[in-house]
Amino acid sequence: MTEIFSSSDDIRGGGELPHAQYATFSDPLKLELGGELPGVTVAYETYGELNATKSNAVLICHALSGDSHVAAHDPSDTPGWWDIAVGPGKAIDTDRYFVICPNVLGGCRGATGPGSMNPATGRPWGADFPTITIADMVECQRMLIDRLGIDKLLCVVGGSMGGHQVLTWARRHGNRVKACAAIATSPRLTSQAMAFDIVGRNAILHDHCFHGGQYYGEECKPTIGLAIARMIGHITYLSREAMRDKFEATRYQPRDVATEFEKRFSVGSYLGYQGAKFVERFDANSYMTLSMAMDLFDAGDSKEELAASIGRAEARWLVMSFSSDWLFPPDQSRQIVEALLAARRAVTYCQIASHCGHDAFLLPNEIDTYGELLRAFLANVNGAAVPGVPEAEAGGPSAISIFHPDRTDYDRIAELIPAGASVLDLGCGAGQLLTLLRERGHEKLMGVELDERSVLACARRGLDVIHADLNAGLPQFGEGQFDCVILSQTLQAVLDVPGVLESMLRVGGRCIVSFPNFAYRTLRRMLAEEGRAPEAPGILSHHWYDTPNVRFLSIKDFEQFCQERGYRVHRRVCLDTEAGEEVHEEPNLNADLAIYVISR
Amino acid sequence: MTEIFSSSDDIRGGGELPHAQYATFSDPLKLELGGELPGVTVAYETYGELNATKSNAVLICHALSGDSHVAAHDPSDTPGWWDIAVGPGKAIDTDRYFVICPNVLGGCRGATGPGSMNPATGRPWGADFPTITIADMVECQRMLIDRLGIDKLLCVVGGSMGGHQVLTWARRHGNRVKACAAIATSPRLTSQAMAFDIVGRNAILHDHCFHGGQYYGEECKPTIGLAIARMIGHITYLSREAMRDKFEATRYQPRDVATEFEKRFSVGSYLGYQGAKFVERFDANSYMTLSMAMDLFDAGDSKEELAASIGRAEARWLVMSFSSDWLFPPDQSRQIVEALLAARRAVTYCQIASHCGHDAFLLPNEIDTYGELLRAFLANVNGAAVPGVPEAEAGGPSAISIFHPDRTDYDRIAELIPAGASVLDLGCGAGQLLTLLRERGHEKLMGVELDERSVLACARRGLDVIHADLNAGLPQFGEGQFDCVILSQTLQAVLDVPGVLESMLRVGGRCIVSFPNFAYRTLRRMLAEEGRAPEAPGILSHHWYDTPNVRFLSIKDFEQFCQERGYRVHRRVCLDTEAGEEVHEEPNLNADLAIYVISR
Repeated sequence: MTEIFSSSDDIRGGGELPHAQYATFSDPLKLELGGELPGVTVAYETYGELNATKSNAVLICHALSGDSHVAAHDPSDTPGWWDIAVGPGKAIDTDRYFVICPNVLGGCRGATGPGSMNPATGRPWGADFPTITIADMVECQRMLIDRLGIDKLLCVVGGSMGGHQVLTWARRHGNRVKACAAIATSPRLTSQAMAFDIVGRNAILHDHCFHGGQYYGEECKPTIGLAIARMIGHITYLSREAMRDKFEATRYQPRDVATEFEKRFSVGSYLGYQGAKFVERFDANSYMTLSMAMDLFDAGDSKEELAASIGRAEARWLVMSFSSDWLFPPDQSRQIVEALLAARRAVTYCQIASHCGHDAFLLPNEIDTYGELLRAFLANVNGAAVPGVPEAEAGGPSAISIFHPDRTDYDRIAELIPAGASVLDLGCGAGQLLTLLRERGHEKLMGVELDERSVLACARRGLDVIHADLNAGLPQFGEGQFDCVILSQTLQAVLDVPGVLESMLRVGGRCIVSFPNFAYRTLRRMLAEEGRAPEAPGILSHHWYDTPNVRFLSIKDFEQFCQERGYRVHRRVCLDTEAGEEVHEEPNLNADLAIYVISR
Repeated sequence: MTEIFSSSDDIRGGGELPHAQYATFSDPLKLELGGELPGVTVAYETYGELNATKSNAVLICHALSGDSHVAAHDPSDTPGWWDIAVGPGKAIDTDRYFVICPNVLGGCRGATGPGSMNPATGRPWGADFPTITIADMVECQRMLIDRLGIDKLLCVVGGSMGGHQVLTWARRHGNRVKACAAIATSPRLTSQAMAFDIVGRNAILHDHCFHGGQYYGEECKPTIGLAIARMIGHITYLSREAMRDKFEATRYQPRDVATEFEKRFSVGSYLGYQGAKFVERFDANSYMTLSMAMDLFDAGDSKEELAASIGRAEARWLVMSFSSDWLFPPDQSRQIVEALLAARRAVTYCQIASHCGHDAFLLPNEIDTYGELLRAFLANVNGAAVPGVPEAEAGGPSAISIFHPDRTDYDRIAELIPAGASVLDLGCGAGQLLTLLRERGHEKLMGVELDERSVLACARRGLDVIHADLNAGLPQFGEGQFDCVILSQTLQAVLDVPGVLESMLRVGGRCIVSFPNFAYRTLRRMLAEEGRAPEAPGILSHHWYDTPNVRFLSIKDFEQFCQERGYRVHRRVCLDTEAGEEVHEEPNLNADLAIYVISR
């Protein structure tokens, strides 16, 4: 039936696991919320080869209904749930990395869970299975890693509940991970997401076939409740736009699927099909156990709590969200990012434009962005060049900035920055200036950029960059977090000029601002003599009606602004970029570009 | 228990209906989808007095779980579900209007429904109750109105499913309604909203106590399924922000409520409480009947279909949506508005900023906006001044425009408009120019405005206005729909200048554009002599860093633009507003404001 609905469900996991290996631990496992399990088994699959230094291991953590079969092991193997991202030459390249994907504790795919035998009673645990947490899952993974003889993971990667495991690795075993990639996840569920889980659990718990959780031997099992929970889940995994695209054209033509559920409408036949299919492969007690673990997951609500928990790890981070994901909305990923910034961690963040909702992290639609970000990130933390992307091309066709590419001010700005200073570049484009600074020996570098492709270009250059719109407010960097904050040729495109400058001066000891001088003689002349809105080569080479520039200021205006606000001006460099020289006489008339070093 | 959760549930209906009156119709009711009911009873409540000409009747249509008790009849009466909006002196003023609120067909609050006796069997209809539609509900309302001797309703008002009834009145009985107020509603449900309904129905249908719908005499009733459906509903009525505000602070402190449902978390205790409470007052068969009627409702998906259906009525419209409503999202209300515009209907639209989600239309939070819009709208269609709002104040403190209030160009613009021409004013503010035009005898007038308070000010002036952001694209008016389209002193604040001008020229035979001339001598001088970004009194009295103006153009620039695009310039009026006179010599130097009449 899989051809009837092309769905991420088909790649969420399921089927047999012939490639699974089993690690059994006979010592009792102490659980976070108290109690213990008398011993646990972890089923897992591996891909690629662990290298001699055991430094190339990537742990992939699956989501609620996933399993260890993250990818096919060979062309004849059944598909895995993330074949698009994992395999030879793919983003998580199994030719380079040793990939480990374990089934989570509490699940029903080979790891110990409610369907496993309770040695004390000789029958399945059922509802007696203790309440477990994400930390307990991660503890099992840690035991597995120990058994495999791996001291430090190159990276822990996971989306959704898999992302919760990534955050927990950072929180509890920060010294065991070199890098963390958290995708479409959150510090804790929104109340809304939790509410959907609760309704699903209520449907299972009050299914008359639930039998208090001991339904394993019974003929009647809580399949209705589990199917209802799954249907709710499916709605939340898709966005409104995705559902429209999927179902509106055939609104009144349900697919002829085998389900007892209502199928008057197209979307109903889909839900019925998904519900009916899910109960064939998933255990209701496991569903409740895992969804409760998600609901109980709480890495901290405030930035301070979150920074103290996940910020403890010395890891480098990649955080990704999807614009239409309303179950794990992008602002929750930004919470993670801001906590990491507060903890002074190296982090790259991208909010990927997508119509696919939460499911986007499993679907091919945006793989060109999120997959390539992952690929570049892994290469960077592995200390290698991005495979297949020569350095010269790293900022290549993707490196598009709305501003003029001929940036003669970069060298001048670089000269103004003290040796070794940490630098934040706002509106960093494809990272040209930051790359120049890295070549000059600066180590702590970070960019902020609006354009998604430029964010990817930065990542390919090995730079940390935060995807953000300056007009929506600067990401919450710490007070004085950088020696130097740069806003080069971006001020004129910013609507909230005072807000951005205030934020810069809070974050940086020194700030460098460059902007085109609107009172440059050529521009004055155009208005004064020709009576036309000034245009000029370079940054002002736009028409009055389509320019990205929305603020027009002169050197005199900027100095007056600084004076009124009490900003200190340390240096001023005025350039005539047409002539290629510095201007000393009457700069407000003779310079087309000004660079200021200011502080509070 | 109502004090435990302050909730819109408490005002959605419930309790006994001692004030209900009953109209019984013994003729068979033919149903839209075939079949008939052998006779129907409609329970309804009325408020206020029907006037001698029977012209002051307002029909209120309730939503899924509402009922006829829209408001308390006296201070000792139980609260109604919309007491904030209906009553003496309130938005729907029962001192002025005769309010009728019937229970819908298929419900369980006094009108014929699945719980009513089926005369053919002598027992309740149960699942044998035929599939009914919103049109069938409206047909019963029409019969009631006939019986009350009312030929034409002053207004039909409804939110959510009540809004579907409003659209259906327009579609089927357009000659019986003078005005329609459609709140938080849609031409048809989104696939997402439908999906939630379907899961709810599946939960009821597969409840083992459903007994094929004939559970009325049984001890065990499908209360679990109905409660599950209700819990899902409650999540969709609230926004993510509203749930955060309601539950985050007490996330782990569930209220001690009487429910068998999971209550480990605060939000869970809320859902359990709402689910348990609902089954005490609502019938599962009715819930399925009404939710199916909503899902089947389809006034047309394309603008053309929708315009042909609801646009048939000669009615005047008020359409309102709420920004955080994701069940009936604002873009669905805009679909209604654009269809009405295509049908050349008079319509006012407002997207009210709210955190309350779909529930906002029942809650007091935004009543100051949506209630006052309703009040003004009813007064306008009733041909009365807005009660309590003197004309002089109608645009009063609310009438805030980001632009300078001293608009000497209004008279000049008015003179350029042919007598009797229909006029669309883009960026109309509080409607000053449109009011002036109305005084000059123009009849077909409409505005577009971004600011919510200004929209309300326009409505108070009796003007039709569409709440929209010009930068997000003009509402889809018809080609040549207005004789004249005006963009006065707004061009300089529009980012997409070519887009807005193209749209204007498509919609209007003639377009009038006024803008400040950036090449005015004072401004030239500032830049040329002082080297500063020009500021001037009036529209340019902002600093370079905080001006709402983002486009700077001269008369010469604009003329070149028109020439390049092939626009015809019919008239040009150049003003020196400082001197208060028209400029004929060197206007690009001597005029600070230009007014153009252009066409394609």
